Amino acid sequence: MTPNALTDIEIAHEMADAARAAILPYFRHRELTAENKLAAGFDPVTAADRAAEQAMRAVLAARCPDDGIWGEEFGREAGRSGRMWVLDPIDGTRGFIAGTPTWGVLIALSEANGPVLGVIDQPYTGERFVGAPGIAHMTGPHGDCALSTRATAALEDAILFTTFPEVGTGVERAAFTAVADRVRLTRYGMDCYAYALLAAGQIDLVIEAGLNAYDIQAPIAVIEAAGGIVTDWQGGPAHAGGRVLAAANRDLHRAALDILSAY
Amino acid sequence: MTPNALTDIEIAHEMADAARAAILPYFRHRELTAENKLAAGFDPVTAADRAAEQAMRAVLAARCPDDGIWGEEFGREAGRSGRMWVLDPIDGTRGFIAGTPTWGVLIALSEANGPVLGVIDQPYTGERFVGAPGIAHMTGPHGDCALSTRATAALEDAILFTTFPEVGTGVERAAFTAVADRVRLTRYGMDCYAYALLAAGQIDLVIEAGLNAYDIQAPIAVIEAAGGIVTDWQGGPAHAGGRVLAAANRDLHRAALDILSAY
Repeated sequence: MTPNALTDIEIAHEMADAARAAILPYFRHRELTAENKLAAGFDPVTAADRAAEQAMRAVLAARCPDDGIWGEEFGREAGRSGRMWVLDPIDGTRGFIAGTPTWGVLIALSEANGPVLGVIDQPYTGERFVGAPGIAHMTGPHGDCALSTRATAALEDAILFTTFPEVGTGVERAAFTAVADRVRLTRYGMDCYAYALLAAGQIDLVIEAGLNAYDIQAPIAVIEAAGGIVTDWQGGPAHAGGRVLAAANRDLHRAALDILSAY
Repeated sequence: MTPNALTDIEIAHEMADAARAAILPYFRHRELTAENKLAAGFDPVTAADRAAEQAMRAVLAARCPDDGIWGEEFGREAGRSGRMWVLDPIDGTRGFIAGTPTWGVLIALSEANGPVLGVIDQPYTGERFVGAPGIAHMTGPHGDCALSTRATAALEDAILFTTFPEVGTGVERAAFTAVADRVRLTRYGMDCYAYALLAAGQIDLVIEAGLNAYDIQAPIAVIEAAGGIVTDWQGGPAHAGGRVLAAANRDLHRAALDILSAY
């Protein structure tokens, strides 16, 4: 099914490297802060977003011109291969604006049934989380390691993340709170970094709502390769976005789904 | 007033280096995760906390045995010099437990009127933020730079951080929300890293309640050296802890204080 999996991983790394180089000059750059941006009509996040997606598209044009591309900034182009690269050049623009190293570059390769390869890259810390069939791996400032989700069996022992305390609509917030009231610890504000921490076996659950496909396809591939489960709040596929439940294992997924699916 | 300021900075760096070496083996260590900890009665955060404070105390014993020490883990020892080192070996233990690189080692040197030197160190990312008279500096994975707070003049343009959406008591939460309702962007979950981002000119306000002295003394020294202001919610000194307002500049401090002081 994946005859050129190694090549796809190499292409994904090349894209992530290109995105890093395009984005880092804009991150925490003092001459590009809000004050100046307003004066000059220049938005550094938008500029970084576009530069990174263009850099990734250039890699795809050179390496696999038959594949389709769906990017957050420049939209969707059908390909001839039946495969689609799904890109979010900066997931977590609010975190980017605030200087926190919690945003990421998201790269997924999607086939008929959803994403088969994913990369979550944090350019500032130098962390890269990669998942694909037979590959679940991270590199970071203190070396490399395998990605593997946790065995936490009960909600009462789980660490839960979401990005905004508001979560989504009133109903979505109520559903989230019903799970949050059961867990050991709830934390906020990590953007896509929370999915990386779940794949790395550091946390147990991520629950979000209102996502786009390009926000979640790379996390799905990384988390599933590491042994976790990602679905919507009814247990169906999550790769189109919307309401997402990511869990470290089947028991925890079932326990959270029992609560969320009632809303 | 600070005849040996350079030496104090060197001592602080030596302490921060020692704390890094003590803590990093425990951070994100898979064999030390919650499951095993419960089985073995071993808490990796507590172990890292204690090891780091002991390592910093050993530096002080060797370098300036006449100074007092107040550490979160091992309490307070009066000195003979009139100076006190105020230490929080891991500020942000919940972030530490969850694997987020938002916790920090806090080192302050305090004299009669409060902290005169501060270090906020993030061992995993390799970032260190230092403030003292004439020194406002950071080192990180992409090089060194000066720390300098922002000129944002209006609440409507400001980025606000706090660690927990709950903030503190009901009254404290209401006061926080009254400010949050005015600002451009509110974010959560950064622990002491938010103070470092304020000193680095990335964000504008941090508002917290229920702090201990060792949570805030290092941030005060770093932020004030970078041009910012840190007080309690009435405009008085914040170095004893409690309710804290940190602002990038005098205008923004006044605007936030006008709201908070009414609660």
